[in-house]
Amino acid sequence: MQNVIGYIRENKDRFLEELFGIIRIPSISSQSEHKDDMIKTAEAYKAALLAAGVDRAEIMPTTGNPVVYAEKIIDGSLPTVLVYAHYDVMPVDPVDLWDSPPFEPVVRDGKIYARGADDDKGQGFMQLKAFEALVRNGKLPVNVKFMIEGEEEIGSVSLGAFCEANKEMLRSDIILVSDTGMIAEDIPSITTGLRGLAYWQVEITGPNRDLHSGLFGGGVANPINVLAKMIASMTDEDNKVVMPGFYDDVLDASDAERKKLNQAPFDLDEYKAAIDVDEVDGEKGYTTIERTGIRPSFDLCGIWGGYTGEGAKTVLPSKAFAKISSRLVPNQDNVKIAGMFEEYFTNLAPKSVKVKVSSLHGGQAYVCPIDLPAYKAAEKAFEEVYGKTPVPTRSGGSIPIISTFEEVLGTKSVLMGFGLESDAIHSPNENFPLNNFYNGIETIAWFYKYFAEEMK
Amino acid sequence: MQNVIGYIRENKDRFLEELFGIIRIPSISSQSEHKDDMIKTAEAYKAALLAAGVDRAEIMPTTGNPVVYAEKIIDGSLPTVLVYAHYDVMPVDPVDLWDSPPFEPVVRDGKIYARGADDDKGQGFMQLKAFEALVRNGKLPVNVKFMIEGEEEIGSVSLGAFCEANKEMLRSDIILVSDTGMIAEDIPSITTGLRGLAYWQVEITGPNRDLHSGLFGGGVANPINVLAKMIASMTDEDNKVVMPGFYDDVLDASDAERKKLNQAPFDLDEYKAAIDVDEVDGEKGYTTIERTGIRPSFDLCGIWGGYTGEGAKTVLPSKAFAKISSRLVPNQDNVKIAGMFEEYFTNLAPKSVKVKVSSLHGGQAYVCPIDLPAYKAAEKAFEEVYGKTPVPTRSGGSIPIISTFEEVLGTKSVLMGFGLESDAIHSPNENFPLNNFYNGIETIAWFYKYFAEEMK
Repeated sequence: MQNVIGYIRENKDRFLEELFGIIRIPSISSQSEHKDDMIKTAEAYKAALLAAGVDRAEIMPTTGNPVVYAEKIIDGSLPTVLVYAHYDVMPVDPVDLWDSPPFEPVVRDGKIYARGADDDKGQGFMQLKAFEALVRNGKLPVNVKFMIEGEEEIGSVSLGAFCEANKEMLRSDIILVSDTGMIAEDIPSITTGLRGLAYWQVEITGPNRDLHSGLFGGGVANPINVLAKMIASMTDEDNKVVMPGFYDDVLDASDAERKKLNQAPFDLDEYKAAIDVDEVDGEKGYTTIERTGIRPSFDLCGIWGGYTGEGAKTVLPSKAFAKISSRLVPNQDNVKIAGMFEEYFTNLAPKSVKVKVSSLHGGQAYVCPIDLPAYKAAEKAFEEVYGKTPVPTRSGGSIPIISTFEEVLGTKSVLMGFGLESDAIHSPNENFPLNNFYNGIETIAWFYKYFAEEMK
Repeated sequence: MQNVIGYIRENKDRFLEELFGIIRIPSISSQSEHKDDMIKTAEAYKAALLAAGVDRAEIMPTTGNPVVYAEKIIDGSLPTVLVYAHYDVMPVDPVDLWDSPPFEPVVRDGKIYARGADDDKGQGFMQLKAFEALVRNGKLPVNVKFMIEGEEEIGSVSLGAFCEANKEMLRSDIILVSDTGMIAEDIPSITTGLRGLAYWQVEITGPNRDLHSGLFGGGVANPINVLAKMIASMTDEDNKVVMPGFYDDVLDASDAERKKLNQAPFDLDEYKAAIDVDEVDGEKGYTTIERTGIRPSFDLCGIWGGYTGEGAKTVLPSKAFAKISSRLVPNQDNVKIAGMFEEYFTNLAPKSVKVKVSSLHGGQAYVCPIDLPAYKAAEKAFEEVYGKTPVPTRSGGSIPIISTFEEVLGTKSVLMGFGLESDAIHSPNENFPLNNFYNGIETIAWFYKYFAEEMK
C-alpha cells in the first residue's frame, strides 16, 4: 500500500485541480434552467472515470437526469464494490451571503469554498481518486462499479426505476458511499443510520385575487392567517406532531441504545454558540442528539404569500404557500407518512379556503449493521489514517436512495463520510477542508484492501 | 348650472386624456426607485391645477414626498373648501396578473384600466375638473384650496407635520375628499366612518444561518414554525384577537345602529361569488358588513422565509418575516395598539429565537356626522346626478390622515367617493368605470352649489 499512498500524496494538487473543474459546472438539479449543466457535469464525470482507469463508462438516460455508470471488472470470482455518488448540487440562494461566488472554487484557510465542495462533488471525487491510485499501482483487489446520479438533491426521483431496470449490471457485494459527515476532523465516525424524508408543498387559496385589506379585512378568511393556524396546529406544546398515526411505526430506541448514543462527544454550549441561539428546542423528553438522530422532525423549509417587498402594502392576499418537510426514522414509511399528511392537512383547512397539498420528495430511513464485513473494513481503514476507531453514529440527514438500494438491489451500503458540521452544506459558503479531502482518499484506498481481506 | 354641466360633457374626452397623462407616471411611494416619479407627478398636478384655474399653485417640501398646494380665493368672507387627494399609488406586483401594463391606461368595456385609475388619481382628478368647470363658467361660489400629497399609501407620514406647520394656509370650513367607494354604480353612498390602521413588520431569527434540515431538524427552533405559532396564537377559534386590551376602547355599536347598518343592500351569495370563496369568515357574532365596518381586523398582508423557489430544497431557515396589519375602529388609538402589539408579540417569542417588531404605518379611525352642512350638500349633489338619496355607510378602509385633519386642523371631512368594489384597488387590473368618472365630476360640481347655499 506504500506506493498507493505515495501516489495519492504526489498527485494531490492535480486531484484538487480536477475537482475544481467539476465544481465549476453549476449542476443545480432543482432548477430547470440548469438542464444543460447536468449533461455537462455527467460528461465531466465520465471523462474523469475513464482517466481514473475504468474499463467502460457511459452516460445512461433515465426519465430525469442521466446516470453516469462505469466499471472495472478484474475477475468475476472476486467481490464487487458499487460506488454511489451524486453529481447534482443544491441551489445557492441567498447568493449575496456567499463570500466568494459559489461556482468559482477557492481555497481559503485550508478549506475549499464552493457549492458542492463537500456535498457531493468533493466527497464523490475522493472515490474516483482512491480508485485511480489503486489501479495505477496495480493494487485494486476487487471489481469496482460506479453509479453517479444527478437527482439526489431532488429525491433521486429516477434512480429507483434505473436500479430496477439494471439489477444485473448493478449487482455488487456492498455499496460504498461518501456523502455523510464525521464528528470532527480528528474524530472519525461512520454513519450507521439515516433519517428518511417526506417533503410537501402546500397552497392555500382564499379569495380569487388580492383584496384591499381595509374593505375586506375581518370579513374574508386570510390565507396566510389560515396557513399559520394550520401549521401551528400540526405540533403541540411539547413539539410532538399531533397527526394521528405519525409515531405509530417509529422504532423506539432502548434505554441502552439511547445511553450509548448520548456518549458521543457533544457540547451543547458549543453547539448553541456555533449557530448563535440562546436555547435549543425540540421534542420534549429527548436530547439534541436524539432529536436529530432517532426522532422524526416537522420543519417548515419555506413560506411565502402576499406582499413581501419594501414598506407597507395593505393587502388581503389571495394565496399563501409553504414547503414543509419531515425527517423520518426507522421504521416510518415515507409513502405512508406522505399520504397521511396530504389527507390530514387537507382536512385541517376551513371551508373558507381551498387547499392543495403536493408531495415533492421522499425516502426511507436506513440502518447499517456494524457486523457487516464492509463495516469492519471501513473501521480498519479509518484506524490506518486517523489512528482511532471510528464511532458509529446516527445522522439526522437523509439519503433516500440508500433504502431503495436495499429494497431493489438487496444490497447494504457503508457510509464512509468525511464532511464536517462546519462545512455548511446546503447553505451559503459551503466548504470542505483540504485535510478531509486528502485523508478521505487515503482512507478509501485502505478500505479496498481490508474489504478484500474480510471477504476472503 | 346648465352651463357647468354642459362644459363637463363637452370636455370629457380631454379630461380623460389629461388623467391618462398623470396615470402614466409610476408614482409608487413605497418603492425608493420611484423617487423621481414622485416629483414628476407633483409637477404634473401643479400644472393641471394652474390650467384648471387656481390663482396660485406650488410644490411644497416635506420631510418626505412634497405636497402640491393650490388655491383660488374669490372672497375672504365666503366659506372655503379644502380638497384633499393623493398622487401616490400602490405597488403593482404581482405584475404578471395584469391584463395590460399597469402604467399604460386603456379603456376596455367602459372602464379605465391602470394602477391609480380609481385610487386616487382617477378620483382626485375629478376634483380638479369639477373645479375647472365651475371656474370657466363663472360659477365658483366659494373659496377653494387643494392639498395633494404623495404619501397616502405609506401612511401619510409627513402630512401631519405639514398640517401643523401650515395651519393658517390650510384653514377651511370643510375638507372634501374623493378616495372612497359607493355601494354600486346606481346606488350612491357616502362614507361616514373609516377604520384606522396599525401595520407592523416582524422578523424572527432562529439560527444565524440556514441549516441542513436533516442534520439539525428537530433539534433547533425553526423560525417559520415559531412565526406560524405566534401568528396563530394571536386569534382564538372565534376569530377574536386575544391580545389583552385590544378591544378595550372599541366603541360598541348599539343594536339600533347595527340594525340600520345591516339594512344596506348586501347579497352574501354575490359577495362570495365575486371573490370565489365558499364561505366567508370572521369574528363570531357579527355579520360581514359589521366585521368590515365596525369591528377591528387582524390580517397578514405578507409572509416570507426560507426557500421559496422551484422544487424541494431541504433547509432549516435562519429567518422568517411577516407584514401584519390591523384595521381599527373608533375609539381605538392606533399608537396605543401599535405599542401594545409590539410588546405582546415580542413577549410571545420563545427563547430559542430572536424577534424584532417594527411599526411601519398607522392612522386613527374617523366618523362623519350626517347633520353637517357639507354632508347635506353632498346628499343633494348625489340626488341631482343619480336621482337617489345616498346611503350613509361605514367603510372598512382607512384614510389615516382624515383623523389627523380633525386633530390638527380642527376640520371635518366629507367623503364623496365614486369607487366600486369591483375597481380592484391595490390589486392587479385596478379599474374605474368611465360613468363613475364623469358622473363624479358632475356630482362634485353640484356639491359646491349646495354647500354655498347650506353655509349661507
